[in-house]
Amino acid sequence: MSPGRLDIVGLGPGPVEWMTPEARALIEKATDLVGYKSYLERLPVSPEQNRHASDNRVELDRARAGLDLALDGARVALVSGGDPGIFAMAAAVFEAVEAGDPRWRARAIEVHPGVSAMLAAAARLGAPLGHDFAVVSLSDNLKPWGVIERRLLAAAQADFVVALYNPASMARPQSIHEAFALLRRLKSGDTIVAFARAIGRPDERIHLTTLALADPSRADMSTLVLVGSTQTRRLARTDGGCWVYTPRSYGAAQ
Amino acid sequence: MSPGRLDIVGLGPGPVEWMTPEARALIEKATDLVGYKSYLERLPVSPEQNRHASDNRVELDRARAGLDLALDGARVALVSGGDPGIFAMAAAVFEAVEAGDPRWRARAIEVHPGVSAMLAAAARLGAPLGHDFAVVSLSDNLKPWGVIERRLLAAAQADFVVALYNPASMARPQSIHEAFALLRRLKSGDTIVAFARAIGRPDERIHLTTLALADPSRADMSTLVLVGSTQTRRLARTDGGCWVYTPRSYGAAQ
Repeated sequence: MSPGRLDIVGLGPGPVEWMTPEARALIEKATDLVGYKSYLERLPVSPEQNRHASDNRVELDRARAGLDLALDGARVALVSGGDPGIFAMAAAVFEAVEAGDPRWRARAIEVHPGVSAMLAAAARLGAPLGHDFAVVSLSDNLKPWGVIERRLLAAAQADFVVALYNPASMARPQSIHEAFALLRRLKSGDTIVAFARAIGRPDERIHLTTLALADPSRADMSTLVLVGSTQTRRLARTDGGCWVYTPRSYGAAQ
Repeated sequence: MSPGRLDIVGLGPGPVEWMTPEARALIEKATDLVGYKSYLERLPVSPEQNRHASDNRVELDRARAGLDLALDGARVALVSGGDPGIFAMAAAVFEAVEAGDPRWRARAIEVHPGVSAMLAAAARLGAPLGHDFAVVSLSDNLKPWGVIERRLLAAAQADFVVALYNPASMARPQSIHEAFALLRRLKSGDTIVAFARAIGRPDERIHLTTLALADPSRADMSTLVLVGSTQTRRLARTDGGCWVYTPRSYGAAQ
């Protein structure tokens, strides 16, 4: 019997063109696939593989299920959207290991990077993350809202571009409204804001606006919200559209 | 003649296993490859493709060369390491477009995401970027050092994990020393620090230490430096090694 192992694999934002060859190979070699059911549905079915699909709100259960399978000798690919290290399954696995069965620590547990949602959204827009930036999850399921406020305040004061993950959910539709209320007190109304929804998937949609005009209720759980720095700008294309980018220099070209 | 286009493509941190199928396809289809010579050397040579290799310090010249080729009808792949949108070629291209030949704005210019160095480094370590984080380039070629200090201060005050790009170069070996001096005044000495060098390449090396003990002169231009938050922790493996991760919850498990 094999010693069992757990590979935490990022599928990227959606299309197979953005999935790394490493991720593909690990998924093919796995005896067991574990993941949120809508991620598993993206993968070809193999009769020799076991599939363990679960709901989206049970990250720790999913992590423990993968670890137990690895303990029993399975070669497990635990799949995650985007990059598994960015507000995704990798941290959940290590939380489970820290609090759980000591034998799990003897298994090979490896994380494999993927294209994250923020990189895909930035690429579609141009280069809004071309300079210093901060990445904040607005979910307060696992951290106090005060921590989120402190981080948005710091990011605004230091003029970081900000990428907001998990801007809203059915259970807490108000998060993005509160975040925008705070940012509007700290940043200029003409700051560039982009709502990037389901990038790379058939229902992809980008809405570009300003902090003064942005309607926070545009954001759902499939949306990444980017808020520019004072340097982030639009660059007109001849066809009437525009790119959005943040220059590498600071202050020079304003 | 084709209308000419410019695709800004990220190769990922090094190994082909981390290059997206999209990047590979765009490189194969290009009539002209433009890029820093050590990135072009990673790619198979095709007798039907023109190669325009350049030095590392001439991003704007490289961008303009790619844009001019696209204007002449070439199908250009401008290659970048990691993700082209993170302290890389995408922002340089849009800077060139903004200041340059108005005809460039009529070309298709698209950015294609890749696995960035920080995602690869984080994956090797475990999940240090599993919670909110800030990303700062320590290069002061294009921004005042005061902006960098202000951002490090804000990141420390709001307890972000921090990823430091461009920590040092031959021309400015002192940047990372000054950054560490500042961070040591603001953060606990037992804060986890990782030097992740050339991740995914044959000379890959990870050095894990604390803020009190870290020797900043370990960092060179191939190194990404990660500085933990108060929540970032080591998790012991049975084999004597450890994973490093930042839990999704804040404050609970301390």
